[in-house]
Amino acid sequence: MEPTGIWLSEPRNMIGIMTGTSVDGIDVCLAEFSFLENKQFFKLKHFRTFEFSSNTKEAIFHALNGRISAADLSRLNFILASEFTEIITIFLNLCNCSLISVDAVAVHGQTIWHEPSGEIIPNTLQAISGPALGAILDKPVIYDFRSADIALGGQGAPLVPIFDYEFLSSSVNRIALNIGGMSNITFLPSSKDKSQVLAFDTGPGNVLIDIASNLLFSKDYDDHGHFARKGEVLEIIFSALKSTEYCLRAIPKSTGRELFNMSFINDHFNQLNNFSPNDILATLTEFTAWSIFFNIKHYIPNSKELIISGGGCHNDFLVERLQFYLPEIIIIKSNELGINSDAKEALCFAYLGWLSLGGIPGNIPSVTGAKRHCVLGARTF
Amino acid sequence: MEPTGIWLSEPRNMIGIMTGTSVDGIDVCLAEFSFLENKQFFKLKHFRTFEFSSNTKEAIFHALNGRISAADLSRLNFILASEFTEIITIFLNLCNCSLISVDAVAVHGQTIWHEPSGEIIPNTLQAISGPALGAILDKPVIYDFRSADIALGGQGAPLVPIFDYEFLSSSVNRIALNIGGMSNITFLPSSKDKSQVLAFDTGPGNVLIDIASNLLFSKDYDDHGHFARKGEVLEIIFSALKSTEYCLRAIPKSTGRELFNMSFINDHFNQLNNFSPNDILATLTEFTAWSIFFNIKHYIPNSKELIISGGGCHNDFLVERLQFYLPEIIIIKSNELGINSDAKEALCFAYLGWLSLGGIPGNIPSVTGAKRHCVLGARTF
Repeated sequence: MEPTGIWLSEPRNMIGIMTGTSVDGIDVCLAEFSFLENKQFFKLKHFRTFEFSSNTKEAIFHALNGRISAADLSRLNFILASEFTEIITIFLNLCNCSLISVDAVAVHGQTIWHEPSGEIIPNTLQAISGPALGAILDKPVIYDFRSADIALGGQGAPLVPIFDYEFLSSSVNRIALNIGGMSNITFLPSSKDKSQVLAFDTGPGNVLIDIASNLLFSKDYDDHGHFARKGEVLEIIFSALKSTEYCLRAIPKSTGRELFNMSFINDHFNQLNNFSPNDILATLTEFTAWSIFFNIKHYIPNSKELIISGGGCHNDFLVERLQFYLPEIIIIKSNELGINSDAKEALCFAYLGWLSLGGIPGNIPSVTGAKRHCVLGARTF
Repeated sequence: MEPTGIWLSEPRNMIGIMTGTSVDGIDVCLAEFSFLENKQFFKLKHFRTFEFSSNTKEAIFHALNGRISAADLSRLNFILASEFTEIITIFLNLCNCSLISVDAVAVHGQTIWHEPSGEIIPNTLQAISGPALGAILDKPVIYDFRSADIALGGQGAPLVPIFDYEFLSSSVNRIALNIGGMSNITFLPSSKDKSQVLAFDTGPGNVLIDIASNLLFSKDYDDHGHFARKGEVLEIIFSALKSTEYCLRAIPKSTGRELFNMSFINDHFNQLNNFSPNDILATLTEFTAWSIFFNIKHYIPNSKELIISGGGCHNDFLVERLQFYLPEIIIIKSNELGINSDAKEALCFAYLGWLSLGGIPGNIPSVTGAKRHCVLGARTF
């Protein structure tokens, strides 16, 4: 019914918009994708990160903390469409590009709730009105990438692995690690056998560090890990953190702010002001590095290289602690492979949008747990 | 980019699913649409109404009353996808049809919030996970029909007029009236000049009558208007009802349960148990008929015929009161024109889905107030 051949017959310019669970910015990229002789190619042309307006950020945090009504959520869908429209306009101006050259816009939407194993019913909610954004821009918008996979019994995450598989596989076993709000990894076998690809959320990425930086230092994040580096790990609390059920849980698994949030920190530190702020950050950073290491050690075949991307790449101290735990693995920042580490997730969703418009499934069932491959998302006209 | 020609080149079987603001049932139809020599045709093949499961109904009422969290709403989207999947299966079995013969499913979704002139931002929210429904059925699903029009400055409603215009226009001025939860009318000029089409919500349809029947008689609706017929209009309250701002408001306008709800009744009757239940129903029925009449008298050019559809058609007493107010107009039930009056809205959304897949705009800007025509909704792959 769909002339996917037409879509794939020419290089296409996609805008990708990613906003993560840490609400630390709006990542926007412009990338070209093409399909030649059965091989896929990408070219990351431009990338920028923008701030959310303070009102929108506040509305999102209210939603993430569960304090939202049907009216609030309805408004948030449209507020995000309006905000993303403005940002796309600014972005294209900054890049000296015109909207005319853009074929479609892929937008992840702001995750408000994600409960892929929900007892009542598996579900997920990424706020954004696709039709509103599409109508204002007068461009096809692809969005809501996680719901179809969840309806097919999958976790709706991670979705980045198809990108990793297509563009990062190599002749040695590799792991791709993205440290966003949460951390997720993809195992890429040297055999390039897709059914052996593994991927899951290891647990926290920047989320706990960011919350604590905000609370204790009034900073949105721990710049280069300076705060944590000056602290000492609180061993008793670290021990307790290491028994977090999620870290030990078998794969596939995915998580979000439902679990790793302010309450999680409070539950472990009880009275935060009994501790040195630097020690708290050192402990949370250690736990974050450890939880990545622990999952790699237990669930991933021996690998030679770890390709890291995401905001967490800039936290030198976190990367050092990770290298400490994984002495035999070569850590490579994705920038060194031509993939701007900050841009990777936005690029992946631009790619997923391109795949969907080409009628190509974007989920890897062995990774998400879904019953079958499916073309992800919804699109406007 | 879209081969809309291919879609329009053959007759297509669409399932349409409509659930209104009164949550009184799930209307499902199977209809065939075709496009021949620049003319559109429809064939309503099957129609049934199903009950919501009691859990789902309760969840929707919680949402409509504003008592909903992000988690509840996320779950509701998937609960509706699951419930509609079951109902489509039962529906097709009852009709001796197979899912294979269905080309696509158009689903309105359950309106949870509708604020097209919202001060913070115009917005609307119809609960349903399109991608979940599409993935389970493995069929394209078209949904979220109202958002694009709202983003373009329109009311996102009414959307039925394009159907009325295409299939009900005649050589005399006609009005099409649908009495669902709310009442909406379309004026169809004998000239068939699309820019002269008018349409808007007149105010309550069955909503006030249903709420009062439920509360006072433990019945979901006033069957044939029997309760109201036995009562007397409470003139002082009727007078006050007639000054309801919405009835007098200039067109275009649209409304919903945000305005016409339990509180609206309480505000006017203060202590309900001071009045005879029959008198309360008589008064609310009179107000409903009057508000339709008042809007026709003030905003619609002289018309010869009124085509009525929707659940309100079965309320003989309401139809009588309407005829009383409009003695010079011939009232025709849409059944007499081959359109099952109960099926009309489901049929319209099946039609809107078919239009969208054919790349044809579904809104009439002179009706909704939108800046321009646009192809409505989002679709799954």
